[in-house]
Amino acid sequence: MSLSIIFLGTAGSVPTTMRSLPAIVIQRKGEIILFDCGESAQRQMLKAGLSFNRNMKIFITHMHGDHILGLPGLIQTMSLLDRTKKLVIYGPVGLEDFISAIKETVQFTLTFPLEIAEIKDEGIVCREKEYKIYAARANHVTTAFAYSLVEKLRPGKFYPEKAKELGVPEGVLWSKLQHGASIKLQNGSIVESKQVVGPSRSGRKIVYTGDSRFSKSLVELAKNADLLIHDCTFDDELAERAEEDGHSTPTQAAKTAKKANAKQLILTHISARYKTPDLLQSQAAKDFSKVDVAKDFMRISLPLPDVT
Amino acid sequence: MSLSIIFLGTAGSVPTTMRSLPAIVIQRKGEIILFDCGESAQRQMLKAGLSFNRNMKIFITHMHGDHILGLPGLIQTMSLLDRTKKLVIYGPVGLEDFISAIKETVQFTLTFPLEIAEIKDEGIVCREKEYKIYAARANHVTTAFAYSLVEKLRPGKFYPEKAKELGVPEGVLWSKLQHGASIKLQNGSIVESKQVVGPSRSGRKIVYTGDSRFSKSLVELAKNADLLIHDCTFDDELAERAEEDGHSTPTQAAKTAKKANAKQLILTHISARYKTPDLLQSQAAKDFSKVDVAKDFMRISLPLPDVT
Repeated sequence: MSLSIIFLGTAGSVPTTMRSLPAIVIQRKGEIILFDCGESAQRQMLKAGLSFNRNMKIFITHMHGDHILGLPGLIQTMSLLDRTKKLVIYGPVGLEDFISAIKETVQFTLTFPLEIAEIKDEGIVCREKEYKIYAARANHVTTAFAYSLVEKLRPGKFYPEKAKELGVPEGVLWSKLQHGASIKLQNGSIVESKQVVGPSRSGRKIVYTGDSRFSKSLVELAKNADLLIHDCTFDDELAERAEEDGHSTPTQAAKTAKKANAKQLILTHISARYKTPDLLQSQAAKDFSKVDVAKDFMRISLPLPDVT
Repeated sequence: MSLSIIFLGTAGSVPTTMRSLPAIVIQRKGEIILFDCGESAQRQMLKAGLSFNRNMKIFITHMHGDHILGLPGLIQTMSLLDRTKKLVIYGPVGLEDFISAIKETVQFTLTFPLEIAEIKDEGIVCREKEYKIYAARANHVTTAFAYSLVEKLRPGKFYPEKAKELGVPEGVLWSKLQHGASIKLQNGSIVESKQVVGPSRSGRKIVYTGDSRFSKSLVELAKNADLLIHDCTFDDELAERAEEDGHSTPTQAAKTAKKANAKQLILTHISARYKTPDLLQSQAAKDFSKVDVAKDFMRISLPLPDVT
């Protein structure tokens, strides 16, 4: 089952000719889950071929303009295109005031239900049938959350030949076994699910830090992530500036990826001063080899992990 | 003296992959005069090579989101880049509330004086040494202004050979004559300015309608304009829809250009339904031959008119 990450905007603070402001999409089974919504997110969606009428949720990391100023235009365009599906926007306290202020001072009509879900504490902020989204406090200059999307465990692999061997007739009993139940055969013997089904299989885990300094809570959130998308505004030489402004360097991002045992690291929120990714890439690669610097419209497909 | 018009955004209502939201620059002697500020105006400025620290003014036609949602990001980026020069934003009532709402609900600090000048009536809204800006009511679904930039008359051409012929010695007396004064020669005879200086010469005139139906006040505003930039959201077949939504068709824009005796017409605010400019262009050209459909990053240079 396909899951892709699409980087719509990879700049930090101010846009450049090459990088739009922060906005990252997880596209999963036809749903769009957008993390941060910097100015131009709607046009980047268009350029990436993403429709405005899909099932969609938005998660805002913090209330700095470069992460939220794409929301009003996106909402307006959705309305102009007659969206009717509900949209939920999650984010820190202050998000509701911002959206209300826009609704009061800009002339447009909403055509769909818009729900603002302000996050006050760490933990699970969104529970879906097939995944959960967790928020953890980031270490920035203002209240900020990092997010992880974690797919639920999938049932283990079913072995039909084992079921046949044990004399279980094909049909409803197979289904019960597949879903974890034990069954009783006509001869009175009991067959347990684990006799014909392998161990549960893990889903995928994607973590996005938003803007953050190094923090133990991010290491915790990113534990065994398949993909860690990390703030990397400044290079190692500017570590002091990163500390001051609440951002990370390549070495700090790599440290988090390594300690968390993440499988892959992507650096984003890149300062306009870096015209090429080389410096940031090489500084991170010293400590964590599977690293890339994001660029706008980069796509990553994450296959389902194999049976463990 | 150079004057250029740069189309940063030429879409109507919603952006497309080819067109950003409304924003048009008049670049004059190092000053940037921006008309409307749709989302992404800041990034379009970057791509057009326009700096954020220049002398600048902004004129907003009306308070619909597609014409104003680029303001917050532009102001924020200017601050992040430490702009110190004052910025004045002109526009209809409601502009001040919008900017205040953004300042209250989005976290950023202004590094420069920002003045909001709400326009209540038609007439001259901005007087500079070398030009004036006029506002006239447009005919839209909400309060909306069209603007014209009109350069002041320049002194007529000075003819040194005539001055010599009349016995005026080169120097301070020439300068007085050039600036309109009469002078007295040592022999007692009077020389008047008009004897050695040609008639005053007109400056340039550029008119931008913003969103509007056909309206006599626009014809008046556009009288003898060197360039008329006109709403053309829909083609002639959709005239009814244009009327309903407060927009114009190519034939209506051409009618205004013709009645106003404008020298050149550019159609903008193009609906996403038109993938090529051909239909709009040909419908307008039937009535006004010097017409083009705007596209993003199109530049037009307007030379100073010759002596008349």
